[in-house]
Amino acid sequence: MEKIKGLIDAPFTPMHANGDINLEVIPAYADMLVKNGLKGVFINGSSGEGYMLTPEERMAVAEKWMASVPEGFKVIVHVGSCCLRESVALAAHAEKIGAWGIGSMAPPFPKIGRIEELVKYCEEIAAAAPSLPFYYYHIPAFNGAFLPMIELLKAVDGRIPNFAGIKYTFESLYEYNQCRLYKDGKFDMLHGQDETILPSLAQGGAQGGIGGTTNYNGRELTGIIEAWEKGDIETAREKQNFSQAVINVICNYRGNIVGGKRIMKLIGLDLGPNRTPFRNMTDEEEASMKQELEAIGFFERCNKL
Amino acid sequence: MEKIKGLIDAPFTPMHANGDINLEVIPAYADMLVKNGLKGVFINGSSGEGYMLTPEERMAVAEKWMASVPEGFKVIVHVGSCCLRESVALAAHAEKIGAWGIGSMAPPFPKIGRIEELVKYCEEIAAAAPSLPFYYYHIPAFNGAFLPMIELLKAVDGRIPNFAGIKYTFESLYEYNQCRLYKDGKFDMLHGQDETILPSLAQGGAQGGIGGTTNYNGRELTGIIEAWEKGDIETAREKQNFSQAVINVICNYRGNIVGGKRIMKLIGLDLGPNRTPFRNMTDEEEASMKQELEAIGFFERCNKL
Amino acid sequence: MEKIKGLIDAPFTPMHANGDINLEVIPAYADMLVKNGLKGVFINGSSGEGYMLTPEERMAVAEKWMASVPEGFKVIVHVGSCCLRESVALAAHAEKIGAWGIGSMAPPFPKIGRIEELVKYCEEIAAAAPSLPFYYYHIPAFNGAFLPMIELLKAVDGRIPNFAGIKYTFESLYEYNQCRLYKDGKFDMLHGQDETILPSLAQGGAQGGIGGTTNYNGRELTGIIEAWEKGDIETAREKQNFSQAVINVICNYRGNIVGGKRIMKLIGLDLGPNRTPFRNMTDEEEASMKQELEAIGFFERCNKL
Amino acid sequence: MEKIKGLIDAPFTPMHANGDINLEVIPAYADMLVKNGLKGVFINGSSGEGYMLTPEERMAVAEKWMASVPEGFKVIVHVGSCCLRESVALAAHAEKIGAWGIGSMAPPFPKIGRIEELVKYCEEIAAAAPSLPFYYYHIPAFNGAFLPMIELLKAVDGRIPNFAGIKYTFESLYEYNQCRLYKDGKFDMLHGQDETILPSLAQGGAQGGIGGTTNYNGRELTGIIEAWEKGDIETAREKQNFSQAVINVICNYRGNIVGGKRIMKLIGLDLGPNRTPFRNMTDEEEASMKQELEAIGFFERCNKL
Repeated sequence: MEKIKGLIDAPFTPMHANGDINLEVIPAYADMLVKNGLKGVFINGSSGEGYMLTPEERMAVAEKWMASVPEGFKVIVHVGSCCLRESVALAAHAEKIGAWGIGSMAPPFPKIGRIEELVKYCEEIAAAAPSLPFYYYHIPAFNGAFLPMIELLKAVDGRIPNFAGIKYTFESLYEYNQCRLYKDGKFDMLHGQDETILPSLAQGGAQGGIGGTTNYNGRELTGIIEAWEKGDIETAREKQNFSQAVINVICNYRGNIVGGKRIMKLIGLDLGPNRTPFRNMTDEEEASMKQELEAIGFFERCNKL
Repeated sequence: MEKIKGLIDAPFTPMHANGDINLEVIPAYADMLVKNGLKGVFINGSSGEGYMLTPEERMAVAEKWMASVPEGFKVIVHVGSCCLRESVALAAHAEKIGAWGIGSMAPPFPKIGRIEELVKYCEEIAAAAPSLPFYYYHIPAFNGAFLPMIELLKAVDGRIPNFAGIKYTFESLYEYNQCRLYKDGKFDMLHGQDETILPSLAQGGAQGGIGGTTNYNGRELTGIIEAWEKGDIETAREKQNFSQAVINVICNYRGNIVGGKRIMKLIGLDLGPNRTPFRNMTDEEEASMKQELEAIGFFERCNKL
Repeated sequence: MEKIKGLIDAPFTPMHANGDINLEVIPAYADMLVKNGLKGVFINGSSGEGYMLTPEERMAVAEKWMASVPEGFKVIVHVGSCCLRESVALAAHAEKIGAWGIGSMAPPFPKIGRIEELVKYCEEIAAAAPSLPFYYYHIPAFNGAFLPMIELLKAVDGRIPNFAGIKYTFESLYEYNQCRLYKDGKFDMLHGQDETILPSLAQGGAQGGIGGTTNYNGRELTGIIEAWEKGDIETAREKQNFSQAVINVICNYRGNIVGGKRIMKLIGLDLGPNRTPFRNMTDEEEASMKQELEAIGFFERCNKL
Repeated sequence: MEKIKGLIDAPFTPMHANGDINLEVIPAYADMLVKNGLKGVFINGSSGEGYMLTPEERMAVAEKWMASVPEGFKVIVHVGSCCLRESVALAAHAEKIGAWGIGSMAPPFPKIGRIEELVKYCEEIAAAAPSLPFYYYHIPAFNGAFLPMIELLKAVDGRIPNFAGIKYTFESLYEYNQCRLYKDGKFDMLHGQDETILPSLAQGGAQGGIGGTTNYNGRELTGIIEAWEKGDIETAREKQNFSQAVINVICNYRGNIVGGKRIMKLIGLDLGPNRTPFRNMTDEEEASMKQELEAIGFFERCNKL
């Protein structure tokens, strides 16, 4: 199977002030991502508040992205939900509209306690879009599925034909590397933490990743990979340090889903509020965050429209 | 507001062998619960695999229960989901079809970390069914919302007019009692662990509860309350001990949602399989569970059709 | 083996202002506990900051208690530590000085992950004081040993001859009751949460317990048992509610080890500061706590010198 | 303050078959470490079962190491314990015998919940050996002290004069890097996970580390640093991958403290059993582990006597 090279962005879902989804802004959003070096989008995931959208909204968002991206720009649709039947329907829809791939994290409810349960869940979803690569999205801090990924790879190998790999959003670069080495790189291991792209590259092979802060800091993050590939370790370090500095700021504002979404407004692409139960930022908080970003020179280096 | 007396049952959602919901069996199910002393149902909750149903299925189940129960038998609809808009729609539907009340647990995703987030979530749902009592379903082991319930009561008091109380499925009888004592019993605290009905009664006031094992062991569980009210502590203890023995058995078979649902078949009301990612019991496991239940004399004392 | 009836107190370790242990106050401390209805002491445990004392200090404290209590007043010495050899020495010492019994919690380091490890640990300690009853002190919130206690009982039964029972400081009254029922009450299950004495009594059999707030609220806590035995449920409830109100207060002041120890000063028995890393209360905090205690009428009902 | 370059080893504590400490083997142990490229030892830590030794044993071990190492080979004494007074005595002893430095992890009991508590604990220990650098040993998986290390650095900066840095045994390379960047590298950040030396090097600056698998795999682990410094990324990757393969094996045998200690016997330096509650490996397990190690070619590449 094709392996992803470069960085895929996990977009926020644009909303109107009243909380309805705002599809109109997606073409401009897509243009911006292309322009700043991103290679695709992983939509309706955690950054996209996918679990907080209705199935109809998720399909509408997927269709709009499909209509907005240039050829070769990958659209991967996150179809995970607590309800397998809903996920199956979303997977089939993604295939029907021509998405490049699908993905799903473990259901947050019921909490997955065994590999066997997770495999069954992935299997039924993957089977609903058999022509598309399926990515498991490992983000145990969000759903409590602290399971060994090597065991998942062993279990799906030979069983789920379109299992492509893992979006790995967890701190263990050791486990990440072991998965990468599994059968000489049989599966596509997508790095999923923007704060450690460089250390991951050093370990080898991690050519692809999916980012959340790439929405506004994609140029610097793709720049890490470029610098590394040129052997320019000092530039790579500087860009990685800068990217961590940006993450330091959003950690003060409830993380990427809340703080990061508001940064989009600051760089010129207003994506509206978050859905309950997220607590939207106040104007005061926005001003304060802006100041912190200015202090690190963010607005000179951020994504451009 | 009216306080619930006696035990409300949390039904399983009946399914056909192919996994489709099976509405036809609900009238017999309702009759059985009435006959065995239950005072109502809390549908589409954790026992009912509510999160694993589509919104349409949840509505269909609710409508069928409404059409199947006698007057005075309470139907409380669990409307919680990860998607607030879906929950709001389910709440409005519950009100429209004449349900007695609604309830919701905290969303499993995103994990709720603050009372403020939880209040907002409950508030918007409760407002969608303003004429019905709203119960918060506290079951932190399932969704990670380990928040102090006294703080929740203080926060909703005066803010959510139809906030009726809490279904309390957690081990702290201390916290439970403190909530019960809040403003001399302003809120309805429904005990939510069948294994400790008796100790909870001793503490005072817990007249009502919502059970999961009441589906098949309701006679004994309601018998605990009756014995206690008559001052017959020895009978109450014997029945509580028996009920714990039943729970010991289901703990060997993946708990109430899986093991308990299969017990229904053994007592004559086949409710079909569980949905993925639950692992359905094998026939061998069923035979073994049956034996364990026989060993404690379960089938003489269980609910009768 | 003899089962404990009534409440055993877990004393604080008295200290001078400079942090040295203060043995001189122990006789008065012992007299006070006797006078207020306590049946013994469980020394050098968590309330006693046992892990924060040197082995020599622990022995000195044990000797002083032995010299200070009247006949029939039980002295149980907590000998748990991270170092088994130290615990073995403390156990042998306890036996030598004529203590009534010994006890130990699971070592906080290394974290116990299996029953087998815990049994080995208890076995070697218990063997060092073979003539004394050994109590396992289950307090998983403190040491992470969240293990099923029924499995522990099964594992020690027939293997550790002087294993007497468990001081159970955990919320699951279900598990507590199952342990109590094991082989018709073969082991002595000591209730270990002062906030739920009454519900535990209702469940049956729990005649004995070990308390931490008994240091200052022992009269009311023993009063719960007395009222229950007389069949006076209303008095038992009132006293249990009062005891919870006291616990509500100490929860505002870093719990029993810090807040509770300071209450001793307020009732006339200054036991000095806590050891690092506990944060000692400021005078301002003490004044504020005093006010909260006055508001619930504590000083009329507390232990008297 | 001087920063550590290269890898420090965390030795196991040698024991006789009866469990007594075995000091006689330490000189040969030291020679072996020197010969295989290690720059010092961090004794009586987690690998050394420090918490399972009596204070007298800890001092004896420290003295023997001091007598066994060549000039310039650093001896850092881990002095952490639950009892601050014991730690203070151990720190003073370390200074008296001329150790190069001291270190301590957070006490496993009581569990540290706040930076303020941790700072107080470190401060009093560091003050007992004022002429030695003090390292905080961050290993939250072992003691539950999941605290932000940047906050620790801010809190000790200007307050604990001999606070040298952190032995960082946690997965977050992001936090590690932020600590490293604090005030342009004011503190010495010692990398503490042998499985991720290479990614850490890429991030920059991590010249020093403390290893547990360096006891038997030190040549390869120091080889990672050497290859990186020469710009030979492929060799560095190969050695890091090999080191992970070794770690994969010990993970099958209860980790480094148990499995790793037994490897020492296989490479010719029998260090005896582990202390309770660790479960010692059976001969069968040893044979099986040996086979797994042979399969990856370990015995050709391991440390040599």
